[in-house]
Amino acid sequence: MLILSLKLMKKLFFLYSMLLFVVSSVFPHGPHDRKISFPDVPGYYTLKCDFHIHTVFSDGNVWPSIRVEEALRDNLDAISITDHLEELKHGADIPMPDRNRSHVVATAAAKGTDLIVVQGSEITRSMPPGHANAIFLTDTNKVLVDDPIEAYRAANKQGAFIFWNHPMWISQARDGIAWLTVTHKQLIKEGLMQGIEVVNETTYSDEALQIALDNNLAIIGTSDIHGLIDWQYDVPNGGHRPLTLVLAKERSAESIHEALLDRRTVALINDTLVGRSEHVTPIVEASLVPVSAVYRKKSTVVSVVLRNVSTVSYTLENIGDYNFQTHSDVITLKAMADTELQVKTLERKSNFNLKFRALNVVTSPGEHPEVIIKITVI
Amino acid sequence: MLILSLKLMKKLFFLYSMLLFVVSSVFPHGPHDRKISFPDVPGYYTLKCDFHIHTVFSDGNVWPSIRVEEALRDNLDAISITDHLEELKHGADIPMPDRNRSHVVATAAAKGTDLIVVQGSEITRSMPPGHANAIFLTDTNKVLVDDPIEAYRAANKQGAFIFWNHPMWISQARDGIAWLTVTHKQLIKEGLMQGIEVVNETTYSDEALQIALDNNLAIIGTSDIHGLIDWQYDVPNGGHRPLTLVLAKERSAESIHEALLDRRTVALINDTLVGRSEHVTPIVEASLVPVSAVYRKKSTVVSVVLRNVSTVSYTLENIGDYNFQTHSDVITLKAMADTELQVKTLERKSNFNLKFRALNVVTSPGEHPEVIIKITVI
Amino acid sequence: MLILSLKLMKKLFFLYSMLLFVVSSVFPHGPHDRKISFPDVPGYYTLKCDFHIHTVFSDGNVWPSIRVEEALRDNLDAISITDHLEELKHGADIPMPDRNRSHVVATAAAKGTDLIVVQGSEITRSMPPGHANAIFLTDTNKVLVDDPIEAYRAANKQGAFIFWNHPMWISQARDGIAWLTVTHKQLIKEGLMQGIEVVNETTYSDEALQIALDNNLAIIGTSDIHGLIDWQYDVPNGGHRPLTLVLAKERSAESIHEALLDRRTVALINDTLVGRSEHVTPIVEASLVPVSAVYRKKSTVVSVVLRNVSTVSYTLENIGDYNFQTHSDVITLKAMADTELQVKTLERKSNFNLKFRALNVVTSPGEHPEVIIKITVI
Amino acid sequence: MLILSLKLMKKLFFLYSMLLFVVSSVFPHGPHDRKISFPDVPGYYTLKCDFHIHTVFSDGNVWPSIRVEEALRDNLDAISITDHLEELKHGADIPMPDRNRSHVVATAAAKGTDLIVVQGSEITRSMPPGHANAIFLTDTNKVLVDDPIEAYRAANKQGAFIFWNHPMWISQARDGIAWLTVTHKQLIKEGLMQGIEVVNETTYSDEALQIALDNNLAIIGTSDIHGLIDWQYDVPNGGHRPLTLVLAKERSAESIHEALLDRRTVALINDTLVGRSEHVTPIVEASLVPVSAVYRKKSTVVSVVLRNVSTVSYTLENIGDYNFQTHSDVITLKAMADTELQVKTLERKSNFNLKFRALNVVTSPGEHPEVIIKITVI
Repeated sequence: MLILSLKLMKKLFFLYSMLLFVVSSVFPHGPHDRKISFPDVPGYYTLKCDFHIHTVFSDGNVWPSIRVEEALRDNLDAISITDHLEELKHGADIPMPDRNRSHVVATAAAKGTDLIVVQGSEITRSMPPGHANAIFLTDTNKVLVDDPIEAYRAANKQGAFIFWNHPMWISQARDGIAWLTVTHKQLIKEGLMQGIEVVNETTYSDEALQIALDNNLAIIGTSDIHGLIDWQYDVPNGGHRPLTLVLAKERSAESIHEALLDRRTVALINDTLVGRSEHVTPIVEASLVPVSAVYRKKSTVVSVVLRNVSTVSYTLENIGDYNFQTHSDVITLKAMADTELQVKTLERKSNFNLKFRALNVVTSPGEHPEVIIKITVI
Repeated sequence: MLILSLKLMKKLFFLYSMLLFVVSSVFPHGPHDRKISFPDVPGYYTLKCDFHIHTVFSDGNVWPSIRVEEALRDNLDAISITDHLEELKHGADIPMPDRNRSHVVATAAAKGTDLIVVQGSEITRSMPPGHANAIFLTDTNKVLVDDPIEAYRAANKQGAFIFWNHPMWISQARDGIAWLTVTHKQLIKEGLMQGIEVVNETTYSDEALQIALDNNLAIIGTSDIHGLIDWQYDVPNGGHRPLTLVLAKERSAESIHEALLDRRTVALINDTLVGRSEHVTPIVEASLVPVSAVYRKKSTVVSVVLRNVSTVSYTLENIGDYNFQTHSDVITLKAMADTELQVKTLERKSNFNLKFRALNVVTSPGEHPEVIIKITVI
Repeated sequence: MLILSLKLMKKLFFLYSMLLFVVSSVFPHGPHDRKISFPDVPGYYTLKCDFHIHTVFSDGNVWPSIRVEEALRDNLDAISITDHLEELKHGADIPMPDRNRSHVVATAAAKGTDLIVVQGSEITRSMPPGHANAIFLTDTNKVLVDDPIEAYRAANKQGAFIFWNHPMWISQARDGIAWLTVTHKQLIKEGLMQGIEVVNETTYSDEALQIALDNNLAIIGTSDIHGLIDWQYDVPNGGHRPLTLVLAKERSAESIHEALLDRRTVALINDTLVGRSEHVTPIVEASLVPVSAVYRKKSTVVSVVLRNVSTVSYTLENIGDYNFQTHSDVITLKAMADTELQVKTLERKSNFNLKFRALNVVTSPGEHPEVIIKITVI
Repeated sequence: MLILSLKLMKKLFFLYSMLLFVVSSVFPHGPHDRKISFPDVPGYYTLKCDFHIHTVFSDGNVWPSIRVEEALRDNLDAISITDHLEELKHGADIPMPDRNRSHVVATAAAKGTDLIVVQGSEITRSMPPGHANAIFLTDTNKVLVDDPIEAYRAANKQGAFIFWNHPMWISQARDGIAWLTVTHKQLIKEGLMQGIEVVNETTYSDEALQIALDNNLAIIGTSDIHGLIDWQYDVPNGGHRPLTLVLAKERSAESIHEALLDRRTVALINDTLVGRSEHVTPIVEASLVPVSAVYRKKSTVVSVVLRNVSTVSYTLENIGDYNFQTHSDVITLKAMADTELQVKTLERKSNFNLKFRALNVVTSPGEHPEVIIKITVI
């Protein structure tokens, strides 16, 4: 409970006034706040990470410093610059004899900020095995070897975490269906492929998700950005990049690495979250905060205000004991907003549970987790 | 197919330029277009109607002319001013010896516009039978009789269509549960109760819907507005009033009446549509217009652009033969916008069907209709 | 200077976070804040008043309670419901035998709020003398007498403050030019006309302003609203109603009355303020708050941030000693926003004055006041 | 006059409907249109040009292709990539032995678009002469010589147009005051300095303007962009980059060059236009299009609708024969919007002139041009 002295109250009120003013003055036309937000969950920080990013050091179109600034504006916790190892589109002008350069430059740009920059590279081969990102590298140059499997081994030797990129990519899978070749099975078996992009840029793959689940791979989502985040993902109109939410014990590169090895990840694309139920359900439940619950007049209908403190709008199917006075069984709780549900509890209760199936959340193809919101009536 | 001469093309381009200019100049700050839109369906006009509206002639707070203007701004086809017959909150100042006055005044205000104004009144009694609206009256005064059932009969004698108001209202149903008393059953049996509000103001009722289905009543949604539509429904931020979509053979009062008698109605609240499948499914299918379908590169993945030409955002569960490269099985098609779906058809097809369950559409409690979108590949 | 303990800092940070959240959640689509704001000035409260308002009790279209709600949403301090005394457009339905009714009803609606409701009426006659508002009446019925001059006298007998309405109205002045008839001169001489609308609805009059200055009348601006404020003044897109700023010693009806008698008023229309220099200049100077002033690098160019805490955008002509590195001599300081001016002071100074002519402020036809902003370099 | 057959009318109406739909669907949240617009003037195209732009090839942060895309989104006609000749901030990674590279790369990126890309370079020296841009170069390498004056001569030998960059820059002019050294006078005399930036990035200089006027130099405005246009100039909230409007006989590089040599330029910063009266006045007059003029009722007050078809909001002082019923003498005509002025013409006229001083337009320090809008009453 927060007890404030009168003097403090006055100061706070003053600050309150100033803040309201600042907010309205900084955004005179009321723009969208582009910061991506997800709440922490019991035991873990929910870190917002994008591990697939290109710059002019391969076939991207910006200097690494822009990637750092984009990440800061998007409120990310960690990024990895993963320029193509073998293909330097701008090589005529940027020869990059030292493949560590894009990471070095990005790290310098992030200095003085909270952003974690993890060294990475995209090992870029034809199928199989296709493209893969190795992150947590220490010397990218050593990964530049001819044989693709040897490249994976070289990365692995540095302790890298390796994930398969866009297995649903139509240039390498004509039908858009992700599937495991013998090579991939071998890589997984050897521990050389520890994750898989279920979300890449504008694509999502049920089959990639199934592969992740069947083979105990980390579920990864990335922007694979080459141009500008703002344009590619229509940020001025409320869009945001895809990314990976990592449930980490601390806010550090080491903790991210540990979490990846333990597969504690959730992929995000638009309003869709993809992850194992034990990881994604706590995020949903932490995102939906009951801020009030009051019975109306003399009735047994209770007005519950749920605050969605996350960047995604949740689409929920009511599978609880009570139905609603204000909604059918399918409801939308908009991102960063309050929604009032009037619940018909039939008798007055001091506390009860709301139970939903979260339809915008995928735990396996076509499967959506149950979430429970505990309500205490005021 | 549209073939245009070069000259015509130039004229059209000129008009196009002017239109773009007009649109941007009229709305320099890009406001929300408040017009409520639904497409017509095969055989019927989809008329947007609000049959529950109050003015200063009972306990509302505006003159009927404001109701007409609100309806025009909302792009409605028909309204009924349904002031309380028995209770004149402002009676000290507005005695209303002639109960037809609010309709007469509204009709005069609508003169010269396309808006259809239907004469109505709210018969306002305690439970049972509670409140009911009688519309298509010819002389409201004659309905002002003591006995409630006699009032219904008097309305019925004029050929009125009568529907039960807010059966879920907590002031008359403490638990918010709509249920039929003996009185209601009798009214239905006598043909004195032909519809029921499944949607009233900010409320929706599964139980009222079930009553409508079980008793062949028209499914009704209304604003029950007393203050200002703009404030009550947050119109400047994209909200809209609830209403009834009536599937009418013509755009006339008579056709609306005929449609109500035939129960061809759908209730709207926020993004939720409520109706019998044979009425609401065609609206959904007409709302989702495929504007292009092109296979990507050399793949079997086809990019389909669906244009949602309606005011509601559709939440769809994919139950078709193919899954998507861009979405999980639950997708949202935003109101008045285009959405690109990339469909993995496994082989190239010249036409195929998308099949969805429309989760924001309710045909009976917890039930959602299937919709089919026919795609022809270009 | 504000020194905060670490603990307090944390609390504040928490509140800060919550506030940001609240602001963004309450306004998920970033709407315009419609509250009209002007700072107080030394010695006086700047009260936002609208003394010309109609309801259904004459030819307006809303019940007085809507007028109260509009005023509260607009952040007004005082209103007067000034229905036409002689003309009751809705008289067939609202006979109003007691002409005090609209005030009584509005007062009841404002109960429990801070809004001051002043009793008033529009004495509505053909020219001369045309229309006039009498406010601070005690019994409106007594003003309802045949002879127009006698009506003014009856109002005056109650201590009313009387101002001439829309002297530029083309229905009563074909050329739109306000001018004093013999009748008006007599009324002024007798003290029966103490103010004049220089601003009415969408109109402004240079000639009315000159009459006010020449005859020591209060300068009045009013909405003269009949429909809805939101529609008439395009509030959702950032518009606001015209009004009168009254410089009052206290926030009370009595103080407003005293201020009117002392002519301490400023009229507002869109971004234009109209008033005597001694009243309007302090408002401008209080509206423009320097929030920082820092010399850039090793230069003699100082970056000054001016915060405009008012609802109007100021258009200023630089008439000071220094010119700007960022602007020509004519600058705009947007409403409720910060603007950075870089000032070339030629040598480093610890304090200096900015001097402007405020072009959106009118003190007499074609005349604009000088304002001085004192800058202290940090 | 446009005469359309009924059939054509129907087609047009259909297209009209589709267009309205397209406009609203493309911009579902009503964003600002970022396209910068200025009308052509009699005899000349008004070309929107930015001749001061950096990329990763010197100290900018994006690949030239992003500069092309930004320019296309901003609706520019021409750009020049003017990387620093001597200073390659990213030289460790991008050695650029051939100084033509950034132009070559930008030209390739612009292929297939209408954008004109002019070869340029920033000759980057300490004061005097400071920095200058040479545009219309043919081989940038040849300009890379030690002696600054010789560099100008080398550029001149290629037919380059050379302008002095940011003469008000505090790093090279501690007081922010642009002034001519002996060196500059010599350069001007020799024809080696033909223009001067009066506007650079966020700065404007009265003194630079005076130098341009006194020495017959072209008046130049540029973005000098290093990061992203969208962020630097707050494009999502309605900002735009500074630039130079070039009055060219044709839409070609050659015509731009000819126009620069003839000094037919206007600099733009925010809502301020800076240029010689003979160039800027026609732009203002073409920007303000009377779209209707109708006398109100039986009065001599005429309602004139002026459509501002340009990207700047005009601030106008009325210096004509008539004053307004709707505005004081200082009015704002918002960008890309219609404004209604009611003009008191005292007697009915079939045509008349509005005469304004355009306060947001600067022809010399503190001087603003007169503009005349010819009105024909309908």
